[in-house]
Amino acid sequence: MRLSELSRRSAVPTATIKYYLREGLLPPGRLTSATQAQYDEGHLSRLRLVRALVGPGGLSIATVRSVLAAIDDPPESPLELLGRATELLSASPGECGGAETDGAETDGGETGGTGDPVRRTVAALGWSVAEGSGAMGELAAALDAIDEAQLTLLEGGVARYAEVLHGLAVEEVATVPDDSPEAAVRQVVLGTVLIEPLLLALRRLALQDAAGRRFGQSRTGSGSQSRGV
Amino acid sequence: MRLSELSRRSAVPTATIKYYLREGLLPPGRLTSATQAQYDEGHLSRLRLVRALVGPGGLSIATVRSVLAAIDDPPESPLELLGRATELLSASPGECGGAETDGAETDGGETGGTGDPVRRTVAALGWSVAEGSGAMGELAAALDAIDEAQLTLLEGGVARYAEVLHGLAVEEVATVPDDSPEAAVRQVVLGTVLIEPLLLALRRLALQDAAGRRFGQSRTGSGSQSRGV
Repeated sequence: MRLSELSRRSAVPTATIKYYLREGLLPPGRLTSATQAQYDEGHLSRLRLVRALVGPGGLSIATVRSVLAAIDDPPESPLELLGRATELLSASPGECGGAETDGAETDGGETGGTGDPVRRTVAALGWSVAEGSGAMGELAAALDAIDEAQLTLLEGGVARYAEVLHGLAVEEVATVPDDSPEAAVRQVVLGTVLIEPLLLALRRLALQDAAGRRFGQSRTGSGSQSRGV
Repeated sequence: MRLSELSRRSAVPTATIKYYLREGLLPPGRLTSATQAQYDEGHLSRLRLVRALVGPGGLSIATVRSVLAAIDDPPESPLELLGRATELLSASPGECGGAETDGAETDGGETGGTGDPVRRTVAALGWSVAEGSGAMGELAAALDAIDEAQLTLLEGGVARYAEVLHGLAVEEVATVPDDSPEAAVRQVVLGTVLIEPLLLALRRLALQDAAGRRFGQSRTGSGSQSRGV
């Protein structure tokens, strides 16, 4: 198909497709003349993947390029592949998280810490994770922030969240195909990146509903806030 | 206490404190001379809150200012308060999510959609949420992305995630104090913002562990990847 049809079928503007081609996120088409190229179903599926990662997935162009490289040249064992994918992704929340660039200087050291409480936390959970994993740093930062803000956690604390998320993780890992490394890395990366916004959005809505149930009826007595949107 | 002691006790550099004072995130101290001001425990606790929100919380200065305003002037009912806090926060993932600013133009319409599938999803769950809530838009975007990427969800699909997160939400809402609006909004805002990075970090670690258990032993047989970090 020609660029215009690729654009129509993917609902991605031609200028954006050209940008992805220039950035190497999409392999070049097959030249049929000096100014014409043909694209195939592989381009369409790759384009959809790129859109998902760059758009709501929120990954930078550079991270997407690394993810695509891992898909195109997967490591041998599924475990190694998972480790590489996790490492790639561990940069992505940092792209957002470090919102400390508003004019105030950072003071380092604050979230780095020794990491010991985090290692103890993970060890207490009995989890086996890569030493120096980006997610360990993120966990340390999250725990520091909760600590600093003296936030009251739910009954059971961090261990309760860990228990629930590990249960989900086991169910999620069951969906990873073990016959094709390409399919496996695709599932792992997309499952990590695309499920995160889903979890956060669902959690905020669940909190609204749960709060309405606790406070809505007894306090305001507002019928319009009860069940049935 | 003087600025230097406030800095020492909070581990926040004086230049950063001065920046927060200029931005109105911290109320001015009590002037004791033309160039000296005194700060109290209230400043220290407010400063810790600001650090938590700006740092790992990842909120912009403007959002933090709105959150502080809601704490200082809370609405009457806890439900209204929760609604306002949720609305304030619904802007924050957008600050990160729209990573489409890399040079390619956006094509709008893509994540907006009609919202109907999302309303149906939420209605099917029996949740009561504010119409037009930012989280609805985030859910729509997340579902679109999953759909576009043709990601295989775990058994039970979105409803399974919803069930698990609603269970957590009920436990979380139980921690919101109902005697003081200030304490309630603090718990709601911090509980939303600070728990999100915790959830994501724990999930990534849980996925590592779960994947190691499924693939590590049988495929690579690597003993170092088994239990006990």
